[in-house]
Amino acid sequence: MIKVTVIGSGNVAQHLITAFLKSSEIELSQVFSREKENVAHLIDAEKITNDYRSLSESDIYVIAVSDSAIAEVSSKLPFKNRFVVHTSGSVPLEDLDSKNKRGVFYPLQTFTKNKEVDFSIIPTCLESEFDDDYTILENLAEAIKSRHYLISSAQRKSLHVAAVFVNNFTNHLYQIGKDICDEHQLPFEILKPLIAETADKIQNLSPLEAQTGPAKRHDQNTIDRHLTLLTNQTQKEIYEILTQSIQHSHVKKL
Amino acid sequence: MIKVTVIGSGNVAQHLITAFLKSSEIELSQVFSREKENVAHLIDAEKITNDYRSLSESDIYVIAVSDSAIAEVSSKLPFKNRFVVHTSGSVPLEDLDSKNKRGVFYPLQTFTKNKEVDFSIIPTCLESEFDDDYTILENLAEAIKSRHYLISSAQRKSLHVAAVFVNNFTNHLYQIGKDICDEHQLPFEILKPLIAETADKIQNLSPLEAQTGPAKRHDQNTIDRHLTLLTNQTQKEIYEILTQSIQHSHVKKL
Ligand SMILES: NC(=O)c1ccc[n+]([C@@H]2O[C@H](COP(=O)([O-])OP(=O)(O)OC[C@H]3O[C@@H](n4cnc5c(N)ncnc54)[C@H](OP(=O)(O)O)[C@@H]3O)[C@@H](O)[C@H]2O)c1
Ligand SMILES: NC(=O)c1ccc[n+]([C@@H]2O[C@H](COP(=O)([O-])OP(=O)(O)OC[C@H]3O[C@@H](n4cnc5c(N)ncnc54)[C@H](OP(=O)(O)O)[C@@H]3O)[C@@H](O)[C@H]2O)c1
Repeated sequence: MIKVTVIGSGNVAQHLITAFLKSSEIELSQVFSREKENVAHLIDAEKITNDYRSLSESDIYVIAVSDSAIAEVSSKLPFKNRFVVHTSGSVPLEDLDSKNKRGVFYPLQTFTKNKEVDFSIIPTCLESEFDDDYTILENLAEAIKSRHYLISSAQRKSLHVAAVFVNNFTNHLYQIGKDICDEHQLPFEILKPLIAETADKIQNLSPLEAQTGPAKRHDQNTIDRHLTLLTNQTQKEIYEILTQSIQHSHVKKL
Repeated sequence: MIKVTVIGSGNVAQHLITAFLKSSEIELSQVFSREKENVAHLIDAEKITNDYRSLSESDIYVIAVSDSAIAEVSSKLPFKNRFVVHTSGSVPLEDLDSKNKRGVFYPLQTFTKNKEVDFSIIPTCLESEFDDDYTILENLAEAIKSRHYLISSAQRKSLHVAAVFVNNFTNHLYQIGKDICDEHQLPFEILKPLIAETADKIQNLSPLEAQTGPAKRHDQNTIDRHLTLLTNQTQKEIYEILTQSIQHSHVKKL
């Protein structure tokens, strides 16, 4: 049985609380929330605190607060030599106060409030300052059935950049697709199966193999026609630079 | 019963042949293939021809050949006043030879050889030169259980550009994610659940609502750190322009 304390009450904290409560190998001993009502629908009132001084002893403290608050929250903890981790993709382990043994438990996923998540398909990136604590992280990940990876802070930084490309930037391309549809009285619905299939394809093919389209074919006629059709300058620039980058990856066959 | 002739033996032709053969409302009367063996695994040998002169009468001729060959193939057809359509997202209806009644049957999806497709979740974009023929297109789409939309040639052009953004360009962002992983000895596997969830999210949320990340939050510290981490100049430029475009869509809250 792993005794866990969760600090935070946002998106990630709530999904972790739900997952921890479901696991028979985890005892969720306490949740710290500045506003107790934020988590009152998830866990018994007596297990919620908004006072750092009343935090009881646990095997691991999971700080799931905004990136910018991680350092401050970790320094407010009124104990030392315990195992304290954060859940961020972009914050280094060293941001945590060194009075405690430090670690990272970063679930690599985009969480949506009120949309249930299945941790068995979410990878977690684990890191610990001391080897002994790594076992706790592994056990915690396995208790919620998550596949886990040992990822250093340096690697995690780059992984976070990669995640920005495949998640934030991809979503913005969906936005541009929708804007173009709106402009021409086309229902965005019509693109949704294509979006689903594009993501599904690379579950089995490499993105290089999965690439199609005018840029890959170096089909300059179609590229020119598309650029003429785009009325928005930023869309044009995005079209041009992504086309060039694809052409660079797929050199023209002579 | 709709009598259909398919002209072409590539990716789309083969998926259409498979779907047409499955439908009880369609009689696939003939397939034209320059190389008969390309479709020999799908349909009886006597129904395959490589000679335009031997094409028999059908309710609809579906030309599923490379965009650049559509005009040429349609002009080679040795008959007139029949209903001839192509399957392209980017070629105007007018590229078809005007000796026949023209139309478009464009399945908006990215097809992969040897990966079965379910036409019941693929939208088809329909267009016909004459109103009378539109019913044939509707019946054909319904016979393979596809949702269909009346889309003009002008709209289809824009739709194709939108499809390039959400499919070709998105896939290239996956490629960049993989390149970053490779550079830092990270398994690309680790990003796949995030890619799947990013696509899944917009099935119910608008892309604007689904947007997250440092660009949306105007988190300049993280953006600067990410730009420092990127070693590839093109990746940096793509990061910058997509970040600016997101910030433009999500104006900073003061
Ligand atoms: N969202 C994702 O998809 C995702 C995925 C993986 C990892 N992460 C990481 O998980 C962590 C939490 O993210 P989130 O999405 O859950 O954020 P969120 O929904 O915005 O929640 C932020 C939480 O931080 C608390 N907080 C902020 N400042 C605080 C302070 N000074 N003292 C105490 N608590 C404070 C907030 O408390 P109040 O409600 O009282 O303000 C809230 O509970 C971040 O490190 C993030 O990078 C997020
Ligand atoms: N791929 C997709 O995801 C997709 C999606 C929607 C629509 N489309 C459209 O569907 C059409 C076909 O695309 P595809 O992906 O199936 O292409 P493909 O796999 O490259 O197949 C092209 C076909 O065109 C034939 N062809 C080329 N030049 C010809 C000529 N001069 N005379 C006769 N046949 C010729 C080829 O015959 P040989 O094998 O004998 O060379 C082959 O059967 C295109 O208009 C495309 O825009 C494609």
